[in-house]
Amino acid sequence: MIAAKGYAVHSQTDKLAPWNFERRNVGPKDVLIEILFSGICHSDIHQVRSEWGPARYPMVPGHEIVGRITEVGAEVSKFKVGDLAGIGCMVDSCKECPTCKGGQQQFCEKGETVWTYNSVERDKTTPTYGGYSNKIVCTEEFVVHVSDKLPLAGVAPLLCAGITTYSPIKRWGITKGHKVAILGLGGLGHMAVKFAVAFGAEVTVLSTSPSKEADARKLGAHNFVVTKDAEQLAQYTKHFDFIIDSVSAPHNYEMYFKLLKVNGVHICVGLPAEPIKFPGSALMHGNRALTASSIGGIEETQEMLDFCAAHDIVSEVEVININYVNEAYERVLNSDVKYRFVIDMDTLK
Amino acid sequence: MIAAKGYAVHSQTDKLAPWNFERRNVGPKDVLIEILFSGICHSDIHQVRSEWGPARYPMVPGHEIVGRITEVGAEVSKFKVGDLAGIGCMVDSCKECPTCKGGQQQFCEKGETVWTYNSVERDKTTPTYGGYSNKIVCTEEFVVHVSDKLPLAGVAPLLCAGITTYSPIKRWGITKGHKVAILGLGGLGHMAVKFAVAFGAEVTVLSTSPSKEADARKLGAHNFVVTKDAEQLAQYTKHFDFIIDSVSAPHNYEMYFKLLKVNGVHICVGLPAEPIKFPGSALMHGNRALTASSIGGIEETQEMLDFCAAHDIVSEVEVININYVNEAYERVLNSDVKYRFVIDMDTLK
Repeated sequence: MIAAKGYAVHSQTDKLAPWNFERRNVGPKDVLIEILFSGICHSDIHQVRSEWGPARYPMVPGHEIVGRITEVGAEVSKFKVGDLAGIGCMVDSCKECPTCKGGQQQFCEKGETVWTYNSVERDKTTPTYGGYSNKIVCTEEFVVHVSDKLPLAGVAPLLCAGITTYSPIKRWGITKGHKVAILGLGGLGHMAVKFAVAFGAEVTVLSTSPSKEADARKLGAHNFVVTKDAEQLAQYTKHFDFIIDSVSAPHNYEMYFKLLKVNGVHICVGLPAEPIKFPGSALMHGNRALTASSIGGIEETQEMLDFCAAHDIVSEVEVININYVNEAYERVLNSDVKYRFVIDMDTLK
Repeated sequence: MIAAKGYAVHSQTDKLAPWNFERRNVGPKDVLIEILFSGICHSDIHQVRSEWGPARYPMVPGHEIVGRITEVGAEVSKFKVGDLAGIGCMVDSCKECPTCKGGQQQFCEKGETVWTYNSVERDKTTPTYGGYSNKIVCTEEFVVHVSDKLPLAGVAPLLCAGITTYSPIKRWGITKGHKVAILGLGGLGHMAVKFAVAFGAEVTVLSTSPSKEADARKLGAHNFVVTKDAEQLAQYTKHFDFIIDSVSAPHNYEMYFKLLKVNGVHICVGLPAEPIKFPGSALMHGNRALTASSIGGIEETQEMLDFCAAHDIVSEVEVININYVNEAYERVLNSDVKYRFVIDMDTLK
């Protein structure tokens, strides 16, 4: 076993604190990564606090991982020592079912998707520990290449917030000529703006906060609408081909459906805990569709990272020391971050 | 004006009864149609009873119209006297907005879609009267050609039930290799079965009534599942590429989403009056989509009728005398019809 250290919680009311643990030895298909940066995703907070079903403790959160390969197994072919590498939300799956083979390992039909933390390996026993740590061992099939052209702290959130927004933009063919609304301007929303702009769409940010307009435009948005201003919103009736909805607080879906053109699509990348509710006629009038999208597969994550390197796209981040992580959580809960906290893992030493 | 007769109601509690009224004279772009058959759609009952917002009385219902051209205006180019012709849910629209030009006149952006009855012409004043009558005048642009190869009574319901199910099947590209569930086997559902089979899909009817299995198979369905049998239903978990949902009673959407494969689409052609409600995670797990589809445009209606003539597809109908219409309504409400009542307009004479 390989000695590792990280920050963990031991119960749902615990604060994150230093913890020593072990990673498995590097197997033939494994790589060992020295973690350089690890992003903080809002979902980390839900899982740490056991808000998404019973959590496994001790828990080392973190699924936005960027680092450098320091050891490779005998059969590893994709990576060599010294390569930059990334790990997102998954570290394994069955790899054999049609869905895994089709590149959507997050929906493995055998239910064998192994999440990066708060999960167990395919042996159904060995717990997984995430990226708030100094090193990680992973099968090379779930590790992606990271370019040295981009600032690495800004790359880390691409492994979750990036792929979560890139994947539906690609799947639904969002491109030049489309009018796209981005609902909510946080960790996910700001990446959706960058990607939709990069794909050539006309991008409008819809937000409850007028104060976000300057930032939205700086990120590349062409328009900004304050959703509390009914008159302003009404001007965008039947305006958009797509809405990318990153809001996880309860909201009025029907109000937004009205902003969609005929055949328009409302894509949720964030979801409230409460059920979604709307009159079906709000979809039927205009043949509109509602969908939701969950992260993305490994090949698509690589494609997204390559796209980011080619288009100079990273997440806007606030880099923090790891001992600031509990305060960072509070700030995430208060939406007080532009737009993602990323832990500099050097500060764990 | 042209003297016409039909069956009308004069208030929301009225029974349908004979009524004499007038149609406009045949204008330069108009055709006059002698109506031969007129289908009874469930929505006729809602409108007659003013259940879909305030109704206009007197009301002559009927938007599944097949007949023969008996007069054409000076500028009419599509039709000649003696041609068979059909009219569906719409008789006019602005014809200039991008949506009308794009062939979805039912969603005219200027709000100028003129419905076949319980509506007003584009002058916002002149009421429209539907197909439970002996003749109708309509601009040729909203009249479609009907083949003489098919039994005309079975063609009438194609103008609403047919296009309503054909349109989403075409839009979503349902074809050979797809597994499709049809939810509910009524006027819409039985047409969805016929079309999905004709497009080469593997079709499964989902129904609460085991008694419908023989009919489902006769219509071409390959499989039949009783939805009240949880064990049987569970065998179809993640099985379907598409669900075509024709049910207008409240139902559990989440239960059906689980039957969809990754990237599967649930298409509503029927809707309950109550809001739709489900946990968003039921869509997000599997990147599933929910959409709803409302009839179809004029060009697509013609395409559908041509497809039906080529593939020998008609609605299953029970042809009735017009003086049976009030009893037919009661039977529709009791789901006691296989699968559409069609009025033989000869019986109005």
